[in-house]
Amino acid sequence: MSNIGWIGTGVMGGPMAAHLIKEGHRLAIFTRTGSKAKELIDAGARWVGSPQEAAKNQDFVCIMVGYPRDMRQVVFGEEGVMNTIKSGSILIDFTTSEPSLAMEIAEALKKREVFSLDAPVSGGDVGARSATLSIMVGGDKEAFNAAKPILKKLGKTIILQGGPGAGQHTKMCNQIQIAGTMIGMVEALIYGTKAGLDIETMLKAISGGAAACWSLDNLAPRILKGDMEPGFFVEHFVKDMGIALTEAQKMHLSLPGLALVHQLYLSVQALGAGRKGTQALYLALQHMNVMD
Amino acid sequence: MSNIGWIGTGVMGGPMAAHLIKEGHRLAIFTRTGSKAKELIDAGARWVGSPQEAAKNQDFVCIMVGYPRDMRQVVFGEEGVMNTIKSGSILIDFTTSEPSLAMEIAEALKKREVFSLDAPVSGGDVGARSATLSIMVGGDKEAFNAAKPILKKLGKTIILQGGPGAGQHTKMCNQIQIAGTMIGMVEALIYGTKAGLDIETMLKAISGGAAACWSLDNLAPRILKGDMEPGFFVEHFVKDMGIALTEAQKMHLSLPGLALVHQLYLSVQALGAGRKGTQALYLALQHMNVMD
Repeated sequence: MSNIGWIGTGVMGGPMAAHLIKEGHRLAIFTRTGSKAKELIDAGARWVGSPQEAAKNQDFVCIMVGYPRDMRQVVFGEEGVMNTIKSGSILIDFTTSEPSLAMEIAEALKKREVFSLDAPVSGGDVGARSATLSIMVGGDKEAFNAAKPILKKLGKTIILQGGPGAGQHTKMCNQIQIAGTMIGMVEALIYGTKAGLDIETMLKAISGGAAACWSLDNLAPRILKGDMEPGFFVEHFVKDMGIALTEAQKMHLSLPGLALVHQLYLSVQALGAGRKGTQALYLALQHMNVMD
Repeated sequence: MSNIGWIGTGVMGGPMAAHLIKEGHRLAIFTRTGSKAKELIDAGARWVGSPQEAAKNQDFVCIMVGYPRDMRQVVFGEEGVMNTIKSGSILIDFTTSEPSLAMEIAEALKKREVFSLDAPVSGGDVGARSATLSIMVGGDKEAFNAAKPILKKLGKTIILQGGPGAGQHTKMCNQIQIAGTMIGMVEALIYGTKAGLDIETMLKAISGGAAACWSLDNLAPRILKGDMEPGFFVEHFVKDMGIALTEAQKMHLSLPGLALVHQLYLSVQALGAGRKGTQALYLALQHMNVMD
């Protein structure tokens, strides 16, 4: 069993940390909102007051926070992990964050003889609870192998994608594909509705062929029921698309589809639905059109 | 067994007609390019010299041509079906065409006591050959029931979507969803390639989760191999998206995602790839970016 510092115990980090505690690992936990750690402390985790405390004398330091700025603060901040993380340990960052930040962290930690893995996940809160996440890893191969027993307790599909940042880049590919399937799905629903089709009957005809996608199967039915509750938050998807667009721009890469979908999701936020699920893209299309 | 007039024996219409001949139906065939009918004539079909000849004294008149203008010509033209189609028969139009044209044809035929079904298909040439098409039908319910034995020999998923035009509208929903999955897929590949990822490894990580779609499974691997050969022609997809945009405009409906993808496919055509498969959208993205 390993000594693990765990930072961030929200809707994703909480259940992930819980799996490791259950497995018998010794966890020191830091989270900004202390109440979020209560269940984990009851389960046997030790509470600490800062990221630097969490990172002290650990074999692994795991981080699952919300935004790149949180990640930067947790690692490089005044009470950051960098102050205490020990030589020979491995940092695993599960946050969906900037590939360039992942490379910067890996570079900085290398000087301390610490390996860093960027390991963003997909599968949402359901995947976190059922330990069926897909984990996209970037970093050193030996460090990946050393971290694998931990990762295997959290996810099902665990693949090393390349060096530092490659995990984040892979996650960006995932989000870019989703941006496309989402805009197609909501525009198909808007068109069908305006044309007076029976949407459920329409979906039966198109969901088994070349139009088939996860969004059509899983999110279109929620829209039909008027259910905009989050599986995945609009505001987090906006963040992810923003990262992808910034990274693309750095690479001198124009992605017009992604840029358009990002703009439409900004409209979803403007409509006050940032804390709704990504299917709320429908609201932006509905708002820009007059639906009977 | 029925007497059937069949008009259009291209890559889709040819194998569809063949299934009905095999079943024992008596087919009178017209096609602009006579050579395309040879196999069918060898199989027992009768060749005729015009759409009006094909429609004469039939129980069903089936049409599978390329564009709405072809459809209009076949039905309303100088030697069109309208001249001869007999009272009590049923016209089935498999062409992906304009919902408003389907309604116009249904209206005109009604006066002749002929029922019309718009019945566009999805599943491509593979689906046509294996009789596994999805057929999206608009029109009268009794006519649909009468045509069902014929349709069942051609497809697997056969659903009445509503009155005249509802089949075409449903097909438009299908194409709108595909426009979205396609732009997401090619932008994900472009991004991943530019970021230096191993694309096959990346695809393994993302294809099982929320990004999953038919395009990612079936067309991304072709792009990786540089295979741009058509399953479905770019120029036909451009036509379909054009119809959807025109119909949307008639309904005062703004579909920014579809409009963008349509524009990008016009660029694919401009690059000379109109007779390539829809995965050639990758070429437009590649062309507007500088890939190493």
